[in-house]
Amino acid sequence: MKYVTYQHPADGARAGFLHGAHIVDLERSCQWAQHKGRCDLQRPLPVALLAFLEGGPEMGARAREIARLLDEVGVEGLDFVLPAHGTPLLSPLPTPRSFRDFYAFEEHVKTARGRRGLEMVPEWYHFPVFYFSNHNAFVGPEQDVPRPRYTEWLDYELEIACVIGKEGRDITPENALEHIAGLAVLNDWSARDIQREEVKVGLGPAKGKDFATSMGPYLLTLDELEDVRDGARWNLTMTARVNGRELSRGNARQIYFSFAELIARASDGVTLYPGDVIGSGTVGTGCILELGTDVHRWLEPGDVVEMEIERLGILRNRIV
Amino acid sequence: MKYVTYQHPADGARAGFLHGAHIVDLERSCQWAQHKGRCDLQRPLPVALLAFLEGGPEMGARAREIARLLDEVGVEGLDFVLPAHGTPLLSPLPTPRSFRDFYAFEEHVKTARGRRGLEMVPEWYHFPVFYFSNHNAFVGPEQDVPRPRYTEWLDYELEIACVIGKEGRDITPENALEHIAGLAVLNDWSARDIQREEVKVGLGPAKGKDFATSMGPYLLTLDELEDVRDGARWNLTMTARVNGRELSRGNARQIYFSFAELIARASDGVTLYPGDVIGSGTVGTGCILELGTDVHRWLEPGDVVEMEIERLGILRNRIV
Repeated sequence: MKYVTYQHPADGARAGFLHGAHIVDLERSCQWAQHKGRCDLQRPLPVALLAFLEGGPEMGARAREIARLLDEVGVEGLDFVLPAHGTPLLSPLPTPRSFRDFYAFEEHVKTARGRRGLEMVPEWYHFPVFYFSNHNAFVGPEQDVPRPRYTEWLDYELEIACVIGKEGRDITPENALEHIAGLAVLNDWSARDIQREEVKVGLGPAKGKDFATSMGPYLLTLDELEDVRDGARWNLTMTARVNGRELSRGNARQIYFSFAELIARASDGVTLYPGDVIGSGTVGTGCILELGTDVHRWLEPGDVVEMEIERLGILRNRIV
Repeated sequence: MKYVTYQHPADGARAGFLHGAHIVDLERSCQWAQHKGRCDLQRPLPVALLAFLEGGPEMGARAREIARLLDEVGVEGLDFVLPAHGTPLLSPLPTPRSFRDFYAFEEHVKTARGRRGLEMVPEWYHFPVFYFSNHNAFVGPEQDVPRPRYTEWLDYELEIACVIGKEGRDITPENALEHIAGLAVLNDWSARDIQREEVKVGLGPAKGKDFATSMGPYLLTLDELEDVRDGARWNLTMTARVNGRELSRGNARQIYFSFAELIARASDGVTLYPGDVIGSGTVGTGCILELGTDVHRWLEPGDVVEMEIERLGILRNRIV
C-alpha cells in the first residue's frame, strides 16, 4: 500500500492511499465499504494517517480490503476517489510524532568529514549515532521550501526514512521489522554555514537543520518490498537531481548499520511510538557538501530538487 | 496561576490548577462555573493542558475567573477539587509539543568543557545554541526515573524551562515575552559516559539525554513573577540536592542569553507552537559533571534528586 496525506479542496488534510491513478480517502471509503458489508464501522478508519498508524495492524487490513473491493467494482462515480494528478500531497505524516536522523552511510560520513578537514572517528563504527530534529517543520512533495534568510550554503540530503508503526521499547534487531509501518523518501535540508558554526559548540546541528524536512510522496508498506529485501536492508537505487541534472547516486543497501540496528539503538531504554520517523542519514554522494561546490554551487531560490528512490517515488521541491 | 497535570484516581491524566492546598480540575470546574454564569461553555476548558495552551489567552482568563469564584464561595463539597497532598502530578505537559534545550549559562559551559579538557569555543558567545531532545520521555515530580542499563555515569542537570503559549515565527526579542505561557523547573537527566562517546561523532547528545526529562511540579504564569523580572531574566535562586545534601546553587538571572534571545533564535525561520518547551541549559554548578566526582559520585538507584527554584517549587525524583 502507498499511504498519503492529501489536501482535499474543501476539507483540508486527509489520509488516503494511492490506487492506480487515484487517491482513495481512507475515512470516507470505509463508510462506503461498510454499506457493502466490507468495513467494520465499530472502529472506523480515521481522517489522519497518524491515528491510522496508532490504530494498529487491523487498520491496514481494512484499507487492503477496501482496495480489493475497489478492484472488483471500479472507482467510477465514487466521490471519495480523487485523481492523483493535480491533487496536492502533503508529507505522509504532516507532523510526525518525532524525528530522529541517523548518520549511517559510511561513505557520506567519511567524505563529509574529509571536506571539513576531519578524520573518521573510530566511535562511528561502535554504534549508530543520531540527533533529534524538528518534527514540526515537515513538508511534502511539490511544496515550496523557503531558503532561510540566514544561510548562503543551502544543501539537500538524500535519505531514506522509516516510519514506526508499532509502539516498542528495547526492540531487538530481530524484532525490529515488525515495528516499521513503511519507508519513504526523505530530504533533510541543511544550512551548511550555520551547521559548521553550531557543531563547534558540541551540541550538533539545530538551526542548520530545523527549518524544513521533506518526506514523501507516499509511505510504502514493507510487503511491497519483499523481493528487494536483504535482512533489514533494501536494494533500492537512490538518486538526486537539481534542475534535472543528476548529482547523487547510491543504493539503500549500502547502509552500514541496518534499519533493524537503528531501531534497536533508538529504542534502547526509550519507547518508540507509531508516527516516529527515523532517517537513515545521507547516502554516499547524496549532498553538495560531499560533492564539493566545484561540482555544484549551493542551492538558490528557483532551484528544483528531486530525490528519487526506486519504488518510493519522487520527492520534488522548489526553493523559494 | 500554577497549572498542573494530575493523575485522577479514576480518569487518568487531567489538567488543573493549584488553589491553596487543592487541585482544581479545569474542564470540570468550567462546567460548574457555567451553571453559576461565570464560564462560557461555547468554548469549554479542555481536559489536557496542551489543548488549554492552544486555546489562547482567553483560556487563561477563564481559569482565573474560576479561581476568583472559588475564592468567593470556597471549595467545600466540590467534587472537581482534590487535595494537592497525595494526588500524583505528572509533568505539566505529559508530552510537550517539542523540546529544545539550550546551553545558555556561561559558567556551566566553561566548567563542563574544562572537565573534558576542552577550551571555551568563541562561537558560544556569537549565538545561543541548542539541541532537540526527546519530548516523548517527559516525567513529572515524584515519579521514578529508571537508570538506563547502558550507563554508569548518570547525572542530573538543574535548569529552568519556559513553555511556549502562543504560536510565532521570527519572533523578536522585544516580543518574546508574550509568547511564554510560563516557567517550570526542569531536570535534563544525562548519561555522561554515553554522551562523551556520542559527541565525538559531531551530532551532539542523543542517547546521552533521550531516556528522561523531568519537568514540574507546575507551570507558573509570568504575571506571578513580575516583581523578580529584569527584562527577560528572572531573579530566582536555583538549588539541587541529592539525598538531602545541597550540591548546586545558582540563580536564573545569571543566564548569558536571556529567554527572549533564546526564543528569537529558536523561532528564526521556524514556527514555534504552544506546548513547545525551551530549556535554559544547566545553571553554573548545576550537575555532577561540573562539580566532579570527588564532590559527589554519579547517581545510583535509590538516590533522591531534588531541584528547587524559588516560586517554581520542588521537582523531586527517585532513581530506580
